[in-house]
Amino acid sequence: MQLSAKFLAELLGGEIEGDPNVMVSKPSRIEEGGEGTISFLGKDKYEHYAYETSASILLVSKEFTPRKPVSATLIRVENVYQAIAVLLEKFGQAQEGSTGIAASAVLDPTAEIGPLVSIGPGAVIEAGATIGAGSRIAAQVFVGTNVKIGDGVVLYPGVRIMKDCEIGDRCVIHPNTVIGSDGFGFTPQNDGHYQKIIHVGNVILESDVEIGANTTVDRATMGATIIREGAKLDNLVQIGHNAEIGAHTVIAAQTGIAGSTKIGRHCRIGGQVGFAGHITIADGTQVQAQSGVAQSVKTPGTYLFGTPAFAYREFIRSFIVFKKLPELYRRLTQLERAADGTAGKNQDRSSQ
Amino acid sequence: MQLSAKFLAELLGGEIEGDPNVMVSKPSRIEEGGEGTISFLGKDKYEHYAYETSASILLVSKEFTPRKPVSATLIRVENVYQAIAVLLEKFGQAQEGSTGIAASAVLDPTAEIGPLVSIGPGAVIEAGATIGAGSRIAAQVFVGTNVKIGDGVVLYPGVRIMKDCEIGDRCVIHPNTVIGSDGFGFTPQNDGHYQKIIHVGNVILESDVEIGANTTVDRATMGATIIREGAKLDNLVQIGHNAEIGAHTVIAAQTGIAGSTKIGRHCRIGGQVGFAGHITIADGTQVQAQSGVAQSVKTPGTYLFGTPAFAYREFIRSFIVFKKLPELYRRLTQLERAADGTAGKNQDRSSQ
Amino acid sequence: MQLSAKFLAELLGGEIEGDPNVMVSKPSRIEEGGEGTISFLGKDKYEHYAYETSASILLVSKEFTPRKPVSATLIRVENVYQAIAVLLEKFGQAQEGSTGIAASAVLDPTAEIGPLVSIGPGAVIEAGATIGAGSRIAAQVFVGTNVKIGDGVVLYPGVRIMKDCEIGDRCVIHPNTVIGSDGFGFTPQNDGHYQKIIHVGNVILESDVEIGANTTVDRATMGATIIREGAKLDNLVQIGHNAEIGAHTVIAAQTGIAGSTKIGRHCRIGGQVGFAGHITIADGTQVQAQSGVAQSVKTPGTYLFGTPAFAYREFIRSFIVFKKLPELYRRLTQLERAADGTAGKNQDRSSQ
Repeated sequence: MQLSAKFLAELLGGEIEGDPNVMVSKPSRIEEGGEGTISFLGKDKYEHYAYETSASILLVSKEFTPRKPVSATLIRVENVYQAIAVLLEKFGQAQEGSTGIAASAVLDPTAEIGPLVSIGPGAVIEAGATIGAGSRIAAQVFVGTNVKIGDGVVLYPGVRIMKDCEIGDRCVIHPNTVIGSDGFGFTPQNDGHYQKIIHVGNVILESDVEIGANTTVDRATMGATIIREGAKLDNLVQIGHNAEIGAHTVIAAQTGIAGSTKIGRHCRIGGQVGFAGHITIADGTQVQAQSGVAQSVKTPGTYLFGTPAFAYREFIRSFIVFKKLPELYRRLTQLERAADGTAGKNQDRSSQ
Repeated sequence: MQLSAKFLAELLGGEIEGDPNVMVSKPSRIEEGGEGTISFLGKDKYEHYAYETSASILLVSKEFTPRKPVSATLIRVENVYQAIAVLLEKFGQAQEGSTGIAASAVLDPTAEIGPLVSIGPGAVIEAGATIGAGSRIAAQVFVGTNVKIGDGVVLYPGVRIMKDCEIGDRCVIHPNTVIGSDGFGFTPQNDGHYQKIIHVGNVILESDVEIGANTTVDRATMGATIIREGAKLDNLVQIGHNAEIGAHTVIAAQTGIAGSTKIGRHCRIGGQVGFAGHITIADGTQVQAQSGVAQSVKTPGTYLFGTPAFAYREFIRSFIVFKKLPELYRRLTQLERAADGTAGKNQDRSSQ
Repeated sequence: MQLSAKFLAELLGGEIEGDPNVMVSKPSRIEEGGEGTISFLGKDKYEHYAYETSASILLVSKEFTPRKPVSATLIRVENVYQAIAVLLEKFGQAQEGSTGIAASAVLDPTAEIGPLVSIGPGAVIEAGATIGAGSRIAAQVFVGTNVKIGDGVVLYPGVRIMKDCEIGDRCVIHPNTVIGSDGFGFTPQNDGHYQKIIHVGNVILESDVEIGANTTVDRATMGATIIREGAKLDNLVQIGHNAEIGAHTVIAAQTGIAGSTKIGRHCRIGGQVGFAGHITIADGTQVQAQSGVAQSVKTPGTYLFGTPAFAYREFIRSFIVFKKLPELYRRLTQLERAADGTAGKNQDRSSQ
């Protein structure tokens, strides 16, 4: 596919500076470039590449003022990152693998498969499951009994959707992620062993949720574990039973949310964060990576850090002193010695 | 299935207060309730729901004294949580998916399959493996060469049991968990590259072990990595080679145990905890989430927090001061200035 | 297989002390031993086992001087751990499972399969994929469109290699690991929802890379996420898009590397460590478990600890004082009271 600067500028709502007829066939990173590619200048610190790149087209922000000559044709846009997203989709080959229903897929006769659905080799669809129009179920996926899958959903290889769970329209789930494993619930018995609590609830993913690879979302004990519309979860994330993740909240890799915790809308959670169970986190909360949130957050827009987590700026102030603790200790000890001396002198005086 | 309050009270060993003939068909959460459901009052802070719920039956503790009228029939029991476990099992549909051996399962002719075993579509059973009576091997599971699986075991879709490992009676393993991957052992060579240490050991799960989804248990270099009876591991947990987990110990999600470490019986380990290798942890040890345990614990019942972890209460005391460190720093600096002043004055005096 | 002490001493380049004709059939741990086995003395603290073990042969270092009689035949070697690696390989049965191409494997006709390749039951090889000589693709593996797999590669059950990724010669990937899932990249839109950034890059594993179970390596947005030759990754590790891991670097379990971060050669990274995105880590850097590395490291051989991480020795010094913070606080308060007293006295005096 060859696309001209003129076509791309129209597609991206941008303005051309240079040759509108130059053609490109794929995107490139600015430090790699290459003739026939389109690259972009995202952050100021990469500016020098703009003067060195061999890319044929360079996507830049409206504000960019070159300080040296640029050989590439420029396309100036309002928001470079939004333009890249559109661009990549244009060049993208998101659709992969076979279409139709593979001969080796195993479908229960009671499953309802919508129009234009593709099901890959070795996939298993259990009794009573429904799959909406245009959904792509990749190879080796498991769709359990009575699972409901919406329209335009993508399940990558090895995804397991356990019985009764519901996956909303246009959700995307990456390889080997598990939706609907039992929650971690056991009741200690008098003789010291644990009795399992049967989990009769399910997991509900609303529309446009995207979940990374090897992530786990546990089913509710009763009721549902819910991921609200547009939320994005990275790889290796753990969502406990009966938790709820608010709409358009993003959660980075390896973070864990314990059972029954409710995260608000538009939150931004760093990687390797932990949340205690049974707490409620206000909308727009931000949590720095590796923090441990032990208590509910009531004020929207709070920014947290540390284990246990508290206000980000206060954590940073405490941490600066933490690094000086040996010095602090020495200074305190010195003061004590001096005070002993002073006290001694004072005593001497008073005894005079 | 419709069950009466009378029947359920007998099942749970409880006492009825209200209409013994009211019927329910499923459990519900107290805040959701609904006619024809049975709900429960677990924690005191939810008490207000008892007066608002539309559930037909409410499970409460013997001690519960309503302060307002309750519309539901009450069943009073000794331990609400134990009763719920029994209740959920009664209503539960733990048995899911097809029975028998799926046509698309691939069984080596030398594998020994016990009576009443079900094996799902696409499952692979390698040479010399044995599977005990009544075990359920779900779709797409892998059971390696010479693996021994006991009676009544449940392996969910995508579980991989690698060669020579042993799974005890009534173990339950959730989707995509890996038992018997090689341990992380490499010997640095003089030229800077690493030589792999071949792992000839295995993993042994004793009876009644339950393991969550996407968890990994590495095989021993030699000998065995052992999970003792009744231990419960959550999702995304990592168990290193030659580690041993004591009986009835519970380990929350995303915790990692490094190689050759031995965890005692009846320990309770929070989420995202890390244990160094080659250490021994006493029975009944509790570890707060996100802690890093770097040394052996000798006293049973120790409670730890922090990285590196030390006594929980001491950590909390130190942490309280950590939050005040900027204030502490200011106060120390002020004292120093004052002392300088005093010292100055004293000096002035002594020079008089 | 029975091997004599004489044969093994030659194999390992060691010297015999005792009966050169004693035969062994397998390795054992020193605390277990057993006649007909070969065991080894690795660390000094296990020395007492040398006098108790019933192993027939004992592998020890050249420097070992027994303080009591040892019943086993000794083989003295330069480096015990290197010798064990060779030994285990000799006794190892790394080759497992069926050979050839399983009837239930699904191969696209355009896939190119090299000589001596084995492909297990239920494996799926998509269009345009190539698999090099002698590679073993286990059961239930997914190899996506246009994936390139080198010679002598081992992919264990449930591994997913997504489209366009490249796996170098002799790489080993453990069960359920995902190579080439999309990176976590979304652009916030004005209306508050996130637009996905299509990932057109891939993942490249150079030769001799080993990756544990349930690990995830995300594909690049553009260009490649790269794991350089000889690097070793443990279980449940997360590698973000466009990250690069240097040659012969080892990364322990549950560590996460955020997007575009570049880790140097010969680094040693502990478990549960987190790296921020877009930073560069010098060659030979060591990071203590559970640390959070937020900034680039410029000096080779740096050793880090803490969140945010700083120099290991300085962290330890600060941490020692952290444990004494309550005491520090009391002492400071006491000094202040004394100073108030002194100040008072001084004031009294000055007012005299």
